Amino acid sequence: MDHSTSLLRLIFLALGAALVLLVLRSAFRLPRGIDTSTTSLFDDAAAGSSCTRFAPWGCRKADRTTKPPSHETDVPRHPLDPLTVGEINRARELLHTHPPFASSPSSLLVHSLALDEPEKAVVLAWRKGADPLPPRRAVAVVRFRGEAFVLAVDLADGAVTPLPVPASGYPTMTMDEQVSLCFAPFGDPAFNATIRRRGVRMSDVACLPISLGWYGPTEENRRLIKVQCFSAEGTANFYMRPIEGLTVLVDMDTREVIQISDSGAGIPIPAAANTDYRYARHTQEDDRTTSTAGAGPGFQKVRAPSMEPAPSGPGVELVDGHMVRWGGWEFHLKADARAGMVVSRARVQDPGTGAPREVLYKGMASELFVPYMDPSEAWYFKTYMDAGEYGFGLQAMPLVPLNDCPRHARYIDGVFAAADGRPYVRENMICVFERYAGDVAWRHSESPITGMDIRESRPKVTLVARMVASVANYDYIMDWEFQMDGLVRIKVGLSGILMVKGTAYSHLNQVRENEDMHGTLLSENVIGVIHDHYVTFRLDMDVDGADNSFVRVDMARQETGPGESPRRSYLKATRHVAQTEKDAQVRLKLYKPAEFHVVNPTKKTRVGNPVGYKVVPAGTAASLLDADDPPQKRGAFTNNQIWVTPYNKSEEWAGGLFVYQSKGEDTLATWAERDRPIENRDLVLWYTLGFHHIPCQEDFPIMPTVSSSFDLKPVNFFESNPILKQRPTKEDDLPVCAATAA
Amino acid sequence: MDHSTSLLRLIFLALGAALVLLVLRSAFRLPRGIDTSTTSLFDDAAAGSSCTRFAPWGCRKADRTTKPPSHETDVPRHPLDPLTVGEINRARELLHTHPPFASSPSSLLVHSLALDEPEKAVVLAWRKGADPLPPRRAVAVVRFRGEAFVLAVDLADGAVTPLPVPASGYPTMTMDEQVSLCFAPFGDPAFNATIRRRGVRMSDVACLPISLGWYGPTEENRRLIKVQCFSAEGTANFYMRPIEGLTVLVDMDTREVIQISDSGAGIPIPAAANTDYRYARHTQEDDRTTSTAGAGPGFQKVRAPSMEPAPSGPGVELVDGHMVRWGGWEFHLKADARAGMVVSRARVQDPGTGAPREVLYKGMASELFVPYMDPSEAWYFKTYMDAGEYGFGLQAMPLVPLNDCPRHARYIDGVFAAADGRPYVRENMICVFERYAGDVAWRHSESPITGMDIRESRPKVTLVARMVASVANYDYIMDWEFQMDGLVRIKVGLSGILMVKGTAYSHLNQVRENEDMHGTLLSENVIGVIHDHYVTFRLDMDVDGADNSFVRVDMARQETGPGESPRRSYLKATRHVAQTEKDAQVRLKLYKPAEFHVVNPTKKTRVGNPVGYKVVPAGTAASLLDADDPPQKRGAFTNNQIWVTPYNKSEEWAGGLFVYQSKGEDTLATWAERDRPIENRDLVLWYTLGFHHIPCQEDFPIMPTVSSSFDLKPVNFFESNPILKQRPTKEDDLPVCAATAA
Repeated sequence: MDHSTSLLRLIFLALGAALVLLVLRSAFRLPRGIDTSTTSLFDDAAAGSSCTRFAPWGCRKADRTTKPPSHETDVPRHPLDPLTVGEINRARELLHTHPPFASSPSSLLVHSLALDEPEKAVVLAWRKGADPLPPRRAVAVVRFRGEAFVLAVDLADGAVTPLPVPASGYPTMTMDEQVSLCFAPFGDPAFNATIRRRGVRMSDVACLPISLGWYGPTEENRRLIKVQCFSAEGTANFYMRPIEGLTVLVDMDTREVIQISDSGAGIPIPAAANTDYRYARHTQEDDRTTSTAGAGPGFQKVRAPSMEPAPSGPGVELVDGHMVRWGGWEFHLKADARAGMVVSRARVQDPGTGAPREVLYKGMASELFVPYMDPSEAWYFKTYMDAGEYGFGLQAMPLVPLNDCPRHARYIDGVFAAADGRPYVRENMICVFERYAGDVAWRHSESPITGMDIRESRPKVTLVARMVASVANYDYIMDWEFQMDGLVRIKVGLSGILMVKGTAYSHLNQVRENEDMHGTLLSENVIGVIHDHYVTFRLDMDVDGADNSFVRVDMARQETGPGESPRRSYLKATRHVAQTEKDAQVRLKLYKPAEFHVVNPTKKTRVGNPVGYKVVPAGTAASLLDADDPPQKRGAFTNNQIWVTPYNKSEEWAGGLFVYQSKGEDTLATWAERDRPIENRDLVLWYTLGFHHIPCQEDFPIMPTVSSSFDLKPVNFFESNPILKQRPTKEDDLPVCAATAA
Repeated sequence: MDHSTSLLRLIFLALGAALVLLVLRSAFRLPRGIDTSTTSLFDDAAAGSSCTRFAPWGCRKADRTTKPPSHETDVPRHPLDPLTVGEINRARELLHTHPPFASSPSSLLVHSLALDEPEKAVVLAWRKGADPLPPRRAVAVVRFRGEAFVLAVDLADGAVTPLPVPASGYPTMTMDEQVSLCFAPFGDPAFNATIRRRGVRMSDVACLPISLGWYGPTEENRRLIKVQCFSAEGTANFYMRPIEGLTVLVDMDTREVIQISDSGAGIPIPAAANTDYRYARHTQEDDRTTSTAGAGPGFQKVRAPSMEPAPSGPGVELVDGHMVRWGGWEFHLKADARAGMVVSRARVQDPGTGAPREVLYKGMASELFVPYMDPSEAWYFKTYMDAGEYGFGLQAMPLVPLNDCPRHARYIDGVFAAADGRPYVRENMICVFERYAGDVAWRHSESPITGMDIRESRPKVTLVARMVASVANYDYIMDWEFQMDGLVRIKVGLSGILMVKGTAYSHLNQVRENEDMHGTLLSENVIGVIHDHYVTFRLDMDVDGADNSFVRVDMARQETGPGESPRRSYLKATRHVAQTEKDAQVRLKLYKPAEFHVVNPTKKTRVGNPVGYKVVPAGTAASLLDADDPPQKRGAFTNNQIWVTPYNKSEEWAGGLFVYQSKGEDTLATWAERDRPIENRDLVLWYTLGFHHIPCQEDFPIMPTVSSSFDLKPVNFFESNPILKQRPTKEDDLPVCAATAA
């Protein structure tokens, strides 16, 4: 091949690549109607749908056989119900006629449009059936000609009122720009040249928009993103085929390529073989390569049992679309574009009085922090804050029936606003199901020692609310599990696919001694980079009422006095009521154990214990980054595992309202610096769950679910254990099951 | 009532109490055939059954409708199969004719009679079908005229060979003496007088034998036990009605009452009301007291879903009674009188080659340590070591179908020797079931960012092996859960009933400020005493072969050099291969994280990683007792969470072979003091799982299950993740279920 031909091809590619790629992608990976999972609300894509260049996922699938859920006629029925389709449209109209934006409504970009929840007192006072809904208001985060606005929108009287805008940072990216930014580099000749030098066909290039954190003044005053790319040739699992070292700095507003960094010379793109994870594809390969069908490993024969409801039916009630009632619990459940899933007004029935008792006013994942542990050029900035940067709920895809949730699960849709302000539906975003996992809620057998013939056992039955956010490669499985004894388990499962790094190495024996690879060689030319995950939950506890106190029950060794006992030591518990925020900051220590209670100091049990709930950590991890490291300053809400703050409506997002490119000036850590009083107040408990992840070959080419959890557990909240009256399961309680027809 | 009448009644009670109680207990709580759970092997109780004064639980229930399992004809089929009925009888005969015992066989007390497992090499070399079983041997721990013996019994050639006897401590109590010791105090007039003074009817007294630890020379050279008693008047839950402060020191051999300590003056026995937990009893009370039937709390309506197997049937195979095959896993599973449940030769199929690969040669709970945190006279000594003192397997009662294990569970019986050496069957002691809990093994959705229409999800299906030991009040639910991706989760659930302390207080406002109650006031006159639970597992890891190394992968903050990166810090992993035992002792720290690998240094993956398994701790607790405190010396195996020792057949029990009244001279901690080399050797990993328990009112009158776990997880053991080929569940895979007939 002579140079002129090369040059011609290069020019052709450089100029035409974006178009070619868009076309190819449309044909290959974005065919019409491919998105079975999301639907617009309207039949006519041209009139009123959000099926636009910006929002292809808003398009109704043409050949869809089942009718998608229509939320067009939804009306709010509870003060905390999310904005409906109609309300989003109304808010959009109001914003479009608002003076600054009215001049050019099409220039208005909606980054967030959600319910502005009424004051707590208003919600608590509201009685279903008796009271009208409190005035419905929305809060909008928009950008207009480069400027960000936060606005309160009164849906009744039409007033649009500006609210304060954070000093640093930018709003959560819209889904539209996340999608379109992937294509921004393709118009840049230098980018195309780089790809060409790597020997990758442009049609195989898949790119991801990577938030770049904040690393100094050079990155300020413009919205920036770093785009990195992969080869999707021969596999859907392009994540395993990084075009290593290539980082394209893009201006998010102009789509302009500012800088291309290529530090990946000599690093091949890992092979596609054995990376595709799609079952259908896999089976085809097996058919081609395996002559002895059925001779595969034993686990292939395993078929999951089914979780079948008792003949009396599943005990879950879903009332008015968002109120969940089950097993003495009642709570409001909704999808949220940023938090993913929000549990509100969780109340549990007192087994003695039958009355509902307040536990949690509002609980949700507030922010995530995912720092990768490689300081090199193409990796140092990867310190994701998935909720505030990408939108944890925006990334939640429709759940896969029978596999993501059991057969008899109920599903709840999300209704969000696209960048143009139009509503769209995220179908089957949350599932709710009654769970029996073969576990035992309580049991006791008397042994021959006492000679009593007692064999009592109660199966553990729980209710799970689940949402899964797929933030590019990672899938976060978020579970809230409610038990009949009042315990709530909040569980985070990490699944999906690793973010890997290309390397020239194909075997460990090529690695220099003491060389820091920042990870594990997972396969030829693939390094799994060490990283952490932190999920910080905001838990607005209202234990039997809004005003609570935080009590640390320290357990410490107590030495006995001379002659006091044959024992030299024992474990003594000491209660400490936290007065202020700093007094309530906790770093867990195995050898300095404690319990962490949120109590209602004005409510006592019959024998005088303050009623409470405790947060019970399980396995977790703590960030070891330097507190002054820029990402750790932004993620400073992970500096402690537990924080307690006084309730403040504006303090919902642990990393700040505008997290994108924020400097860490407006985080939970800065709020708590004020050291406000927290005793006997309406308080908010923050808990951070963490994971260290050193990848291993079992994380290639897919990453099996790893999960961790923490509990909110009643502590002297009930006079005795509620499951005392639970009935054991009898054979008559169970369904009769048979095989399906072949 | 005049004094002479009182005196007469006192004398009558003092002399007749034991008999009266035995009769009453027989009639009331030990009626004929009450023990539906355990069966002798023989129809005729007089000839060959263990239905004796010592072993009432060995009696066949007369009115039993279903035929109990007959194990009379069982033969061993695997080198690790437990002793059969025939082998136990044979061993008994051999012991009875052994010279020292032949003079008086009826004086021989069998404390333990179990398989003496063949050498590991012999077991590994054995091929089913091709080889005869290796010679069957038993190891017996017996006592004869006050002296303990450990004997190897060759069941083929009949040789009985003495083995070394530990320097301190006594064997595990027999079940017979645990039962009969409860009655020992009743013959003592002073005891009867004490009970009388408390106003308790002798017929309502229920006593427990409590191991007393070791607290100095005065407690040496005789087998002692402390008996404490409760009032069972008006409730089956006598645990909630302690006769506080009354401790009877009894000689275990002579049954003689040595000392009665009564420090409970002025402490009333707590009321029986609302303590009975039996569902049948409860329902009756409800019928009496509740006029509005069905108006109870919502959770009463909940009925557990059923875990129904796929039409293709449960994937579990139980071969030859003890070999479990499921989902690529194969392992040997058996009941053990001391450890409870033993998993041996766990192998997992390689998804690439299909070959079985060794993971774990033998895994079991080795010892428990349960120190209570009250140094006062009636409580300081409560520092149970349940496996070695009481026999964790001896205390395992028959599982309750549908409630302890799901409907389609398979059950395995235990066959043990009674004190007279005769075999008896503990029915349904272990259950094995395939589990689907609604969880996700792996999943990934592509988001609109990439535009690929991918929704892949795989349900998590696992296999659970379960045993529950009911050591008096506490029920330990022991699960081994095997996953298709090679992970093994070992879980300990604590359930049952608290051990509580009587108190004069009925409200917290009566308690002096700064008074140390050593626990929580749970109800009027009831304190739940703070305590810890530790379960130490012995895990003889054989990762792809016996010779392994222990690698600690430390994660620490690494500061970047000047100008190296915009990042100041990152997390760096450093591998450290432990050379000797002390090098492998680990105390977990949240801010000094590490991974703990057992690798095979001679086997590498394709890209050069050593194949391994890691132990992954989850939530746990550490003992804070003074290392020189007598109970902590005995429980010194809890000084670290992780230990690694070279394989040594005699080092099976972390607290020593003879734990009862031991001084802590023969524990894992003393063995490891030798600091033996452990690199590239056959090694044993020890992991201790811990709980701190500050009781709360939710633990009254029953204690809901609290569980914790740790994982054995493949780390570079497979070339890629085995579940890659798992098939998603389709509707056709599921059963068709309907309600049962009303």
